[in-house]
Amino acid sequence: MKQIVILGATGSIGTNTLDIINRFPDRFQILGLTAKSSDDKLEAIVRRLKPRVVALADPKSAAALARRIRTLNTEVLVGEEGIKQVACLSEADLVISAIVGAAGLIPTLSAIKTGTTVALANKEPMVMAGEIIQGEAKKRGLTILPIDSEHSAIFQVLNGERHIDIKRIVLTASGGPLLKLSKEMQQKVTKEEALNHPNWKMGPKISIDSATLMNKGLEIIEAKWLFDLPPEKIDVVIHPQSIIHSMVEFVDRSVVAQMGLPDMIVPISYVLNYPERTALDLPSLDLAAIGTLNFAAPDFTRFPLLSLAYEVLKAGGTLPSVLNAANEVAVAAFLNERIAFGEIENVIRKTVDAHLPQKAQSIDDVMAADAWARSAGEQTIAQIGSC
Amino acid sequence: MKQIVILGATGSIGTNTLDIINRFPDRFQILGLTAKSSDDKLEAIVRRLKPRVVALADPKSAAALARRIRTLNTEVLVGEEGIKQVACLSEADLVISAIVGAAGLIPTLSAIKTGTTVALANKEPMVMAGEIIQGEAKKRGLTILPIDSEHSAIFQVLNGERHIDIKRIVLTASGGPLLKLSKEMQQKVTKEEALNHPNWKMGPKISIDSATLMNKGLEIIEAKWLFDLPPEKIDVVIHPQSIIHSMVEFVDRSVVAQMGLPDMIVPISYVLNYPERTALDLPSLDLAAIGTLNFAAPDFTRFPLLSLAYEVLKAGGTLPSVLNAANEVAVAAFLNERIAFGEIENVIRKTVDAHLPQKAQSIDDVMAADAWARSAGEQTIAQIGSC
Repeated sequence: MKQIVILGATGSIGTNTLDIINRFPDRFQILGLTAKSSDDKLEAIVRRLKPRVVALADPKSAAALARRIRTLNTEVLVGEEGIKQVACLSEADLVISAIVGAAGLIPTLSAIKTGTTVALANKEPMVMAGEIIQGEAKKRGLTILPIDSEHSAIFQVLNGERHIDIKRIVLTASGGPLLKLSKEMQQKVTKEEALNHPNWKMGPKISIDSATLMNKGLEIIEAKWLFDLPPEKIDVVIHPQSIIHSMVEFVDRSVVAQMGLPDMIVPISYVLNYPERTALDLPSLDLAAIGTLNFAAPDFTRFPLLSLAYEVLKAGGTLPSVLNAANEVAVAAFLNERIAFGEIENVIRKTVDAHLPQKAQSIDDVMAADAWARSAGEQTIAQIGSC
Repeated sequence: MKQIVILGATGSIGTNTLDIINRFPDRFQILGLTAKSSDDKLEAIVRRLKPRVVALADPKSAAALARRIRTLNTEVLVGEEGIKQVACLSEADLVISAIVGAAGLIPTLSAIKTGTTVALANKEPMVMAGEIIQGEAKKRGLTILPIDSEHSAIFQVLNGERHIDIKRIVLTASGGPLLKLSKEMQQKVTKEEALNHPNWKMGPKISIDSATLMNKGLEIIEAKWLFDLPPEKIDVVIHPQSIIHSMVEFVDRSVVAQMGLPDMIVPISYVLNYPERTALDLPSLDLAAIGTLNFAAPDFTRFPLLSLAYEVLKAGGTLPSVLNAANEVAVAAFLNERIAFGEIENVIRKTVDAHLPQKAQSIDDVMAADAWARSAGEQTIAQIGSC
């Protein structure tokens, strides 16, 4: 019986993970769960799965939940400290790290420092502090298991292969809902249009990241740290159908790709059962029925955040953390209708350009850059808002 | 230094293998070579690579070669017995089995019985005697390495995976040069049209097999024995571009595919270097430049030999051997312009239908069925020819 902790249990990945765990009650047991403020959702899960401990970041939500489940044996913790405690439960066999954004960094790192294997659904911690996270994981002989469909694809393909035989990896990108729009048309895109991803049902933050292709930019940086590859060995190809999730080219020019219908159940099940696979009752990929798979080179002019991500990755240090934080505040400002879609890239570019890159040797360095970028990004947003 | 034996050194696979070996003279040494009757070609290779021993099936060709290279240290053997001796060289690290057709069976089996790893380029031995070959290989702890691009793809994908996790394999088929022709149009196809494969440059026998889709039928049977899978776990999809070479669907619905530009150098290099890979100076697969990959279900009505192969595989015993032999004589008759293209399937179907299937417990059973089918097939061909 694998003891599972889910950080971010009420989000899209958390919900999918719980769905799988429900299907295999003899294989997995929920030990701990965390959420930001969704006490109602968390209560329903607690009543069904009876975890030992849960934590809510928001104190009011935590208090409300504690009151309502006081007759149960589930302990309710509160705040960042509470979430960290859940991440550090030493009985856990696997921590699913699915907190959206930079907030996932400290809990993820805490789980690794406890010696627990982490399956990573949020890319931000790796973007911000990939070197530190992998350093801590390696010290303890831990392998970080990716959940992102692209990185899960690469991870599955590399199973049984030698790192030295990798020529390059190719991340596929659907291109998001705005793939065909001109640069000018992109400017005026509404929230609904930007959120309407053609293939994947995801949370709002990652959906907007897909529309700007910043999601692919973050994935490039994540891939560097997950697979220990230099930027020039990480390519992107546009593939609107999202059937090929990503691929590896080996030095002998053999290319191995992982494919499937777009469904996060598959990569989540993979990390839950790794190194084994388990049968899932899902439809099979039927390429004959699909008929056609399309590919195109990414357009770096219409999607400049993708080339910015390459620049930032090459520069390294605190810059990826700044890129990520600037993106988070810009996307939040767009979702709150404070700035237009076209301003997202301006906020990010301006923040990145204003940053004096430094080495990211400690989490304090990373968090300081993150805080600086949030503040700098907010200032730019405020200026735009007041125009 | 790996000691290599090539059975069928002057054919298409043999030539490609020698090409790779020439590129890596510090890694591979040619120990022995065989050919049917191409003494001129073999002489050129012997002068360059100085193998210890060669064999020619045709006595006249062997005598001619022996005379011309008598000053060299290469021994020249003759006939089936000579080829078998080359296959049995105990110093060999790898035997490349690339003799076209049923003639490859005995030498392949002899190499395995000597305890040498065999890389299999000709599918006919597995079709005829898969159970016997795998039985002998397993007794000696040997893994048969496939060279056929489809089976190499499956083999590469299965590296690091558990057999129990396979849901099915999907062999891709280009559909050959006649993919779009109606059943009626197929009847009158010329030799040149049938030999004109759109993606692969191959020998005449396999090119005709590709035009009838019998090649895919033989590959289904080969896959059963190579990967120990029942017929219902072996599917075929038409994929005209031959970029995806084949794929495996796992029980969790994850599909992993091996891809690449169509070039036999890649799978041959894979078996030569297995379990490592080696860098090859070839163009990379550029999916963005290719743009589109197409897929369709195979048309069993226009290509009835594909469904016949499934029937034969399910029936088992001596029937696959009969299918293979009938195909060999029918294809030879077409290449010699004794029968029309459309008669190939009639000769095969008639021969298979006339055979009383028996268990294939020994190579004698297999060879008897092969001989019977050749004779029965020839009779049918003679009748057609005299019409």
